[in-house]
This record gives sequence, structure tokens and C-alpha cells, in this order.
Amino acid sequence: MATLPKVVGRIRDLRAAVGGFKAEGAQVALVPTMGALHAGHVALAEKAREIAQRTVVSIFVNPTQFAPHEDFSRYPRTLEEDLFKLADVGVDLVYAPTATEMYPAGFAARIEVGGPSAGLESDFRPHFFGGVATVVGKLFIQCAPHFAVFGEKDYQQLKVVTRLSRDLDLGVEVVGLPTIREEDGLALSSRNAYLDEEQRRIAPVIYTALARAADAIRSGAPADAAVATARGMIEALGLKVDYVAARNADTLAPLKDRGEPVRLLAAAWLGDTRLIDNIPV
Amino acid sequence: MATLPKVVGRIRDLRAAVGGFKAEGAQVALVPTMGALHAGHVALAEKAREIAQRTVVSIFVNPTQFAPHEDFSRYPRTLEEDLFKLADVGVDLVYAPTATEMYPAGFAARIEVGGPSAGLESDFRPHFFGGVATVVGKLFIQCAPHFAVFGEKDYQQLKVVTRLSRDLDLGVEVVGLPTIREEDGLALSSRNAYLDEEQRRIAPVIYTALARAADAIRSGAPADAAVATARGMIEALGLKVDYVAARNADTLAPLKDRGEPVRLLAAAWLGDTRLIDNIPV
Repeated sequence: MATLPKVVGRIRDLRAAVGGFKAEGAQVALVPTMGALHAGHVALAEKAREIAQRTVVSIFVNPTQFAPHEDFSRYPRTLEEDLFKLADVGVDLVYAPTATEMYPAGFAARIEVGGPSAGLESDFRPHFFGGVATVVGKLFIQCAPHFAVFGEKDYQQLKVVTRLSRDLDLGVEVVGLPTIREEDGLALSSRNAYLDEEQRRIAPVIYTALARAADAIRSGAPADAAVATARGMIEALGLKVDYVAARNADTLAPLKDRGEPVRLLAAAWLGDTRLIDNIPV
Repeated sequence: MATLPKVVGRIRDLRAAVGGFKAEGAQVALVPTMGALHAGHVALAEKAREIAQRTVVSIFVNPTQFAPHEDFSRYPRTLEEDLFKLADVGVDLVYAPTATEMYPAGFAARIEVGGPSAGLESDFRPHFFGGVATVVGKLFIQCAPHFAVFGEKDYQQLKVVTRLSRDLDLGVEVVGLPTIREEDGLALSSRNAYLDEEQRRIAPVIYTALARAADAIRSGAPADAAVATARGMIEALGLKVDYVAARNADTLAPLKDRGEPVRLLAAAWLGDTRLIDNIPV
């Protein structure tokens, strides 16, 4: 069994370690996570290992991206298992700060990113991207990596953090990795742990519906009609849909032209669990 | 005559130059300005020279901290004279980016700092500190100095950027310098250039009124009464007062206890020119 990676919880220890990596001439890749690591996260860490000589994984369940009624307190926390998984990948450093290290007394700053954060998730979780942009901005500033690896599973988030890095001159190249799925198509997510057996059986419908819509659009169907059909498929299995949408894959703006790159995105509730997914057309 | 300092306009050239300073083992101090430099700015640059081996002055009239009806277009721009003044101080580098370098196409990020930005200036210029926090955050990230020097003349701004640096882990020590004044007490400001002869004669009343209020409070007068008297003095000379206030000198929160450190702050219009000032008690 591989040695567990070194874990630091303080910004100054993170900076000292990353400074050491850079002094060796290494490039550094950061994988920001909220822990509860699954094969999707492992793939992100493997990608980080591939593109940089040194890999840092942060584990921080960020309170500011949850609204009061959301699942912050029940969000799975599995640090020990997480460390074993990261050891197997050969991650060099785990940064697991406390909430007070990230948000000390009197903390009052907030980073907002407009543009790609408009609509979709923001219509249903208006606090979300402000919380994400602030914590990712801080992680980028604290760690100062060359690369950061995010999953396409949170596609809108990927666009937001890409814009964030560019707009604040953070110098971090954001790398997106295609979503890892179960055999039946369900996108891997820490929140899948909330699903009971029956829900787990139904959950892949989001992916299936999006995949059919993508096929329909590729065959010439109008995006609006394909999206409406997908929504109907998901609702037919009893899920409560927040949105199913076809958007410009780069800007996430509503579609205007034929021929622009299209991404299909959806969010829906299965009981008390909110699932999201997206695919390219 | 001293050689003019080197001027760069691109982030990458700024980073290369500052990287060079750091490679020499120098500490770097940044003085962010909007140009139109006066003796107050010169004092900031001199302070920077005193605390660090290398000094960078940025000159950027930041459009995002002006509202549409404000004086962005008529704000004085005097780059050549500015450079001569900075040469005399021995500044090493001037960073004068274009608006497109700071805010490229699609720019969508915004940094907000709550806490010290609440009230006072924000009640009258609600866009202001968002614009300041965003541009100063970007300047700190772009330049990555050890120190940044700001004048106490913009006291609330000084508190906001101090909070900003701490909250976003920017690692910049913010140093405040007491306000430089004309002989009659008027705080130096680039906006004093807007005043006609008669207005210039009247303008010191803001300082005089605050100084009397500070004396009264030191002699045991209640802060509320002292502030009301100061407001009356300023209005008696025909200025339109935005605010005169006594606040906690550290947090800028309204006063609660006897014995907390007090700062008096005021903003008032003299014709079309808005003047601000503040003093310790």
C-alpha cells in the first residue's frame, strides 16, 4: 500500500510545500474537491499527475456554497478513505483547511463572476457560484498552482472558474475532464450516496434523456423540441426538474445561431437529492 | 534630473520586472494611484521607498469605480508630469495598463468586501468599493508586492483594501500614511484641481470642522453633538454635506462604547466637486 499523502491544514504550510515543489522546478496541479471522493475525483487526480510533476488535492466542504436549507451538514465526509484513494494515485499533498482557516473572524470578501454564472444553476441556487468563486479564488491564490483540474460534471462551474482565473489574472490554467459515469450512464457524484435502491435505479434517466436529445439535435431536430422531450422523459419517472436546457457550450448563453457548439444541461430532484448532469451535442 | 522610471503597460511585463526584483532578494512595495499625482502621492512613494528596496507605482484611472454621472471623463490625466515626479523620488517601475489590459473582452468578475465598506461612502457611491476592491485585488494579484501603501485621506478605502488583502490571502501588507495637507488644512486631492479660487478658499472648512469636533470629543462632548456642530459649520459655508460621522476607527462601525478608538469622517460637495476628509480623535 502506498504511503498516505502529506496533509496540511494551514495556508502557510501549503505555501511552503508548494514553494518547495516549484523550487525543484516542478509544475503544480491542484484538484479542488469537497472530499467524499469517488472514481470521478480519482480521474481528476490522475489527470493532474499526467499534466504536472506535483499534485495537490484540496478537501474542503465549503459552507458558503450551500444555502441554509441545503445539505451542508449531511454532505458526506470521509477523510480517511479519501486519503487512501489519493495515496493510490500518488498525490503529493492534501490541503484540508478548517473553516476558520478559510474564513477567519471578520471575513467580509466575496468574489462574483457574472457571464457564465447567469441562469441555470443560479436560477435555483442563487448563492452557489458566489460561494464557489470565492473559495476557488482563495484556493488558487493560496496554492498558486500552474493548473487546476475540474470535472465537466459541474460544467457551469468549470466555465465560471475558467473565467475567474482569467479575469483576476490568477495565472491558473483550468483543465476540464469529461464526466465519469456508472455503466448505466449515471454521472458519478458524491450525492449519489443519498439515493436508495429504487432511486438509484431511476437516476440514470437524466443522462438517458440528455443523450436522446443530443441524438435528436444531431439528426436535425430543433433544440427546443429536443429539450422539451427530455424534460418529459425525466418527469415521467417522477423527478422534479429544475431545468433542462440547450446552451452555447462556450459561453452558456441561450442559443442564437445554427452551428454554434451546443451543450445540454439538466438538474432535477429525485426525492430529497438534487442531481445534475450535462453532455455535449 | 533623474532618469524617468521604466513604464510597462502589460501584466506580463509587470510580472517579469517584479520577478526580477524578487530574484535580487528585494522586497517590493506597490503604490496604487489614479495618476494626477500631488505631494500626497509623492509622500506615499517615499514611504514605499523607505519600507522596501523596490518601488512600483501603478497609474490607472479605473472606470469601474466611477458611476456614469461621475467625473471619470474629466478626471485629470497628467502622465508625463507624473513620471517626472516619480523620477525625483526614485521609483523603480511605473505600471500604467490600458483599460483593455485590466478588463479584457468578456470580463465578468467582481470582488466585493463587506464589513468596512458598509455605509459612509457606500451610502452615496454604492458602486465605489466594488470597483476599488476589484481593481486593487487585480493589482495585488498582478504585481504580488510585499507591501502596498495607501493614504489615510481615503480612510474607508484603506480599511477595505486591508480587509481585502487579508480575506483573499493576498499576502500584501497594507500600510497607511497620514493625510498630507495644505497649510490651511485642506487635504491634498487630485480633485482640488476642480476648485475655483473662491471654492479653494472655502474648502478647508471640512478639515477645520472635523478638527473642532475632535477637540470637543476629547474634551468630553458627546460624539453626536460634536458631529452635528461640524455638519452645521460646513453647511454654513454653502457646502452640501453627504455625511459627517464618528465611527470606530478600526471597524468603521457606529460607535457603541466609551473608550473605543474614534475616527471622524466627512464628505461634502463644493459646487460640482466632491471632497472627503477624515481625522483621528
